[in-house]
Amino acid sequence: MAAPTITLLTDFGTADGYVAELKGVLVSLAPEARLVDATHEIPPQDVESARLTLARYWRRFPAGTVHLAVVDPGVGSARAALAVESDGRFLVGPDNGLLSPALLIPGVRVVQLPMPSSASRTFHGRDVFAPAAAALATGSSLAELGSPFDGPVVRRTAPVRQRPDGSAEGEVLAVDRFGNAITNLIARSGTYEVGGRYVRLVRAYADATDGEPVALAGSSGLVEIAVRDGNAAARLALTRGMPVVHHPA
Amino acid sequence: MAAPTITLLTDFGTADGYVAELKGVLVSLAPEARLVDATHEIPPQDVESARLTLARYWRRFPAGTVHLAVVDPGVGSARAALAVESDGRFLVGPDNGLLSPALLIPGVRVVQLPMPSSASRTFHGRDVFAPAAAALATGSSLAELGSPFDGPVVRRTAPVRQRPDGSAEGEVLAVDRFGNAITNLIARSGTYEVGGRYVRLVRAYADATDGEPVALAGSSGLVEIAVRDGNAAARLALTRGMPVVHHPA
Amino acid sequence: MAAPTITLLTDFGTADGYVAELKGVLVSLAPEARLVDATHEIPPQDVESARLTLARYWRRFPAGTVHLAVVDPGVGSARAALAVESDGRFLVGPDNGLLSPALLIPGVRVVQLPMPSSASRTFHGRDVFAPAAAALATGSSLAELGSPFDGPVVRRTAPVRQRPDGSAEGEVLAVDRFGNAITNLIARSGTYEVGGRYVRLVRAYADATDGEPVALAGSSGLVEIAVRDGNAAARLALTRGMPVVHHPA
Repeated sequence: MAAPTITLLTDFGTADGYVAELKGVLVSLAPEARLVDATHEIPPQDVESARLTLARYWRRFPAGTVHLAVVDPGVGSARAALAVESDGRFLVGPDNGLLSPALLIPGVRVVQLPMPSSASRTFHGRDVFAPAAAALATGSSLAELGSPFDGPVVRRTAPVRQRPDGSAEGEVLAVDRFGNAITNLIARSGTYEVGGRYVRLVRAYADATDGEPVALAGSSGLVEIAVRDGNAAARLALTRGMPVVHHPA
Repeated sequence: MAAPTITLLTDFGTADGYVAELKGVLVSLAPEARLVDATHEIPPQDVESARLTLARYWRRFPAGTVHLAVVDPGVGSARAALAVESDGRFLVGPDNGLLSPALLIPGVRVVQLPMPSSASRTFHGRDVFAPAAAALATGSSLAELGSPFDGPVVRRTAPVRQRPDGSAEGEVLAVDRFGNAITNLIARSGTYEVGGRYVRLVRAYADATDGEPVALAGSSGLVEIAVRDGNAAARLALTRGMPVVHHPA
Repeated sequence: MAAPTITLLTDFGTADGYVAELKGVLVSLAPEARLVDATHEIPPQDVESARLTLARYWRRFPAGTVHLAVVDPGVGSARAALAVESDGRFLVGPDNGLLSPALLIPGVRVVQLPMPSSASRTFHGRDVFAPAAAALATGSSLAELGSPFDGPVVRRTAPVRQRPDGSAEGEVLAVDRFGNAITNLIARSGTYEVGGRYVRLVRAYADATDGEPVALAGSSGLVEIAVRDGNAAARLALTRGMPVVHHPA
């Protein structure tokens, strides 16, 4: 059997050494586990970005994978520390909405991690979350890690609003490195309106003319606003949270 | 026997989660493989940078290594998807010149990967290239992955032009993080001319005086223009493609 | 037994391919070793940053771990190349102060690595340090790698100055990605003075009011100057080397 995998997502960057500290804990406590960097380049304290990034990949890994995810502006406050089992995968991280993609799946189980008195007040990633991830990777059950969480966990979603005229109002969830604006709308025939401009739906970048802003179904199944060989966000001044409206054909 | 290695080179950055999706596919399909990040920081859609970076490392890995390389501005167009065997290593990526370092080696074998109907139109890295890399890492042969590619593959080179007077005109191939300008010239005795300035050839940074621009044989064997304890590209306004001329002694 | 671990710290960035070359050497020479990226984002040639980052993590990894650390502005000069055994861990890197955290531990052993005539003049990371790290990871002893280093090694420290009035003057060692200024002072009751401003000591970010600069014991045990949900360095214009004074209560 292959070694269990622990993925890491943080907003730490790598230069300061905090990520290496996490890895030292993981290698010490789970020496057989395979460590996989998801990213350490989430913008500092941007829980919303982290949530969307996690949503992309957590179910691409096989059952049994442990996802360690630490973007934690509330560290040292009363926010709970969670371990989660969802669809056969494990997730460990703070109760601030970051783990929403897994928390929204039916059948999810959640426990609250105890806070050891020795834990730093500023770095629960190292002192609380990494040890829990290592324990899961070495065979501990969720129940061994903590007690069932009885409070409501923080779940973030970005709902689409259906309008009486048949149109649907969503929003830009994220702008990626290529300047594509990913929305929360499912691709359907019709026209997309963003920033006062109407764009048509195409199947692939290659179906757009040079410089033409278009909508297309991105790799996650959601509509993206893109410019072929260009940067749509820069061209159209698209930013996170900007409304995007679908008008049926 | 050690597990097979899959290296990853992309222009995705890591923050958006695309790299983590790739890794999820690889861990799922080739659970024993060792994943090694080469880089995810190729400038977006910069095939030329990716080609030069790949050239540095692909033969430093042992025979049997699989190099997954995805910088793919043409995704969704008619450009072919390739798997390559060259000098005992495997490479997987788009037919846009990125794989040139391996394609230029005598005896190279190339197959075209089929495009599954389920593949996303925008993310062949995840849906086409990563599965092919995983298959090679788990023992599939090149022939099992696709049919021999009969078209001409895209091969990029940066040739040096020999001049009648004995001088040779090359160019700046890349500027690295330290501001060293790497050229396509082999180090030979004489003087190097760049941006209207003549610089001498030294053996090591330590042989230069403070602030003096020099030429030296870099770690790839090619001439680099450098400033000791300084940034040559910033100091001399060196950019990719700028001519560099060797004048024999 | 789990495979030996080799961690990597460099100032190379990843885009140029130098890190991938290192990894190719390591995979070739130590095929069973586990490679763990600490960071490749140390600012170019910033030995002091590298030293502080290494200090954070080198003892978090288990005994037997090999730490490869290459920030090497003196490459090609007469500076020695070192392999070090300290507190059960191994470290490999240039003799420029980078390895100070391990060199300051009683009982440390140091050997000087020979310089092969085939080594590049500009990339000892690939040609000298990585082969030494691979040898240690595959069971070579320190003595097999080189001869005991008889010269004084470069050790960097950042001492605190005790003043006659009972106060203690330290400095900002580093500013992290979140804008926290990490000092060389141990947390004690009293008040901290930085940039003409006095800040109180709190236990956790959550004990500060919004926007209030505070001092608190960071995760390494050292005092940090921080602003809750804000960037202290930007707010207070804190930079590396700036004096920080502790006034007892």
